[in-house]
Amino acid sequence: MSDRSRSTIEGPMTPLPATLSVTEVLARRLGEVALLFQQSLVNDLPAVTRLTQHVERYRGKMLRPTLVITSGMAVRDGSPQSASVDHRLNALAAVVEMIHMSTLVHDDVLDEADLRRGGATVNTLRGNETAVMLGDFLISSSFHLCSSVGEPWLNTALGAMTTQLCAGEILQLSHRGNVSLDDQTYFEIIRRKTGVLAGACCGFAARLAGGSPETSEALRLYGEELGMAFQIQDDVLDLIGDEQVVGKTLGIDLRKGKLTLPVVIHLARCDGTQRSQTIEAIEQGDVGGLVACVRSTDALNAARERAMQFVSQAKSRLSRVTESPSRHMLESIADAAIERTS
Amino acid sequence: MSDRSRSTIEGPMTPLPATLSVTEVLARRLGEVALLFQQSLVNDLPAVTRLTQHVERYRGKMLRPTLVITSGMAVRDGSPQSASVDHRLNALAAVVEMIHMSTLVHDDVLDEADLRRGGATVNTLRGNETAVMLGDFLISSSFHLCSSVGEPWLNTALGAMTTQLCAGEILQLSHRGNVSLDDQTYFEIIRRKTGVLAGACCGFAARLAGGSPETSEALRLYGEELGMAFQIQDDVLDLIGDEQVVGKTLGIDLRKGKLTLPVVIHLARCDGTQRSQTIEAIEQGDVGGLVACVRSTDALNAARERAMQFVSQAKSRLSRVTESPSRHMLESIADAAIERTS
Repeated sequence: MSDRSRSTIEGPMTPLPATLSVTEVLARRLGEVALLFQQSLVNDLPAVTRLTQHVERYRGKMLRPTLVITSGMAVRDGSPQSASVDHRLNALAAVVEMIHMSTLVHDDVLDEADLRRGGATVNTLRGNETAVMLGDFLISSSFHLCSSVGEPWLNTALGAMTTQLCAGEILQLSHRGNVSLDDQTYFEIIRRKTGVLAGACCGFAARLAGGSPETSEALRLYGEELGMAFQIQDDVLDLIGDEQVVGKTLGIDLRKGKLTLPVVIHLARCDGTQRSQTIEAIEQGDVGGLVACVRSTDALNAARERAMQFVSQAKSRLSRVTESPSRHMLESIADAAIERTS
Repeated sequence: MSDRSRSTIEGPMTPLPATLSVTEVLARRLGEVALLFQQSLVNDLPAVTRLTQHVERYRGKMLRPTLVITSGMAVRDGSPQSASVDHRLNALAAVVEMIHMSTLVHDDVLDEADLRRGGATVNTLRGNETAVMLGDFLISSSFHLCSSVGEPWLNTALGAMTTQLCAGEILQLSHRGNVSLDDQTYFEIIRRKTGVLAGACCGFAARLAGGSPETSEALRLYGEELGMAFQIQDDVLDLIGDEQVVGKTLGIDLRKGKLTLPVVIHLARCDGTQRSQTIEAIEQGDVGGLVACVRSTDALNAARERAMQFVSQAKSRLSRVTESPSRHMLESIADAAIERTS
């Protein structure tokens, strides 16, 4: 893999015509990133390549690569095109997508407890063992690809970021089924679990693109806050989304004992009787019952409001970035995080 | 973690008196490695630190750190002590131990093992999900610590190595329950699964210590072949070891459909009736019955002989290294790989 990924990064890349819009440049770059992603996972063992092709099924909106490419464009807006910077941004985009995919694959690993409850989500791949190894392969490949970028600071920053991400997952697991989870701990969990990766996409891209430390930090915070808004919207959709639109079973968090923001807010607001009813709905995995409980204290709207606050905070960080079509796109991405229905 | 690990690597380290024997130097260094390992896993979240402390229970013989330190000494024998090289070797030793621990933690998810080194495994204590996250945390921490060594080539090499390691695990899983597994595929699996990590310990250490490309490659091959011998001995012990001594449940490989070398050799040698009996023993997870089958074709001894061949091959690689007490220790480590009963 080493030689292939390196030659892809250092190889020639046709400069794009200056007349292309931000959306068109982004689309071209995402196509290149998807190719690099795929090429980097090709292995000399056919068994491995066959398995990594399953990962394609997980591919969604490519939000994280989009954040990398758009942040890079926002920082470089107006400066001359540089193929080597574009190559590095593409590689970073593939790296963060691999990290994201590995978390999705590992999230699919079922607990014995889940298996006992029966009828819970079924691993779409080939059982726990393969899911664990595929996730590990993705993590390894991402660090390998990252080191080929040739920026030693990026390796250190990536290692620190993924360590924080894992710590967030562990923190969440340690609070599984804790109906007294307070909102500060909840925010700390989602900051580490979702925020830091999105923050890294923007902050690392800004630094690769030559942004000042202040601009890079502003973009990192933009990403982190956007990521948190995104996670809260996920929480809301896990309760009241349309299964057909969301594309996954509702109430997964509930069944895994993961308290989401609407539930955390509701439990802090409700009285003793409501609390018992809510805990019963949680224990029985009764999504409909839980939604009724949560609505009674207007906690769904309160959660949505908190997400909106994160979005405005994220957008305010962009004042450090020169006004441009790419900056405008970053604003639109932030708005879309809470407007989406899937 | 970043600042702590970096300061530990760059901080002052008392030079050891020249009168110390190789064994004494190794013992001191392993003590330092254990401390660095522990310090690097301290997290600002108490939930994470509590969990990583559990990893201490997995700590066994520290074979991989021993390979790093001893290979480094063998290359530098006679050259003046350099604290900065020693710091780097210590960091590499902690890095490979973290990678090894992560594979053990993730193997426990794979194997649903009841016992690991005589203690409860993470997955039986806290569930598969926590075991997956702890393993991921260890992988992330190892890449983070690796980048603090300040040798960009080491990051690339580590990423390539762990990718190969995961590919080996995936290859093994893809052959689960395959009673027609041939010995060449078996050797390819164990080379990737066990050989490449041990090879990296020796080869990377040699390069860090200033060894020539030829010496570093010879030491890498020594490690790879030693690792393969070690794995075959593990296979033998999985069948005929003493549970009290080995410290883990016997027949784990068998129950998970992983064919070990004695069984692979036996199946290639036996006739139709013996084959049916063997497959029945495998399917029923009957360790005693399988051992009786395997003994009937002398396949256990044949596997042991193959391990001995790997040991001699490994030792012959050391002719590239100047004769010294450290080189002698590497020879002893190779012999011990197949003489051990646990």
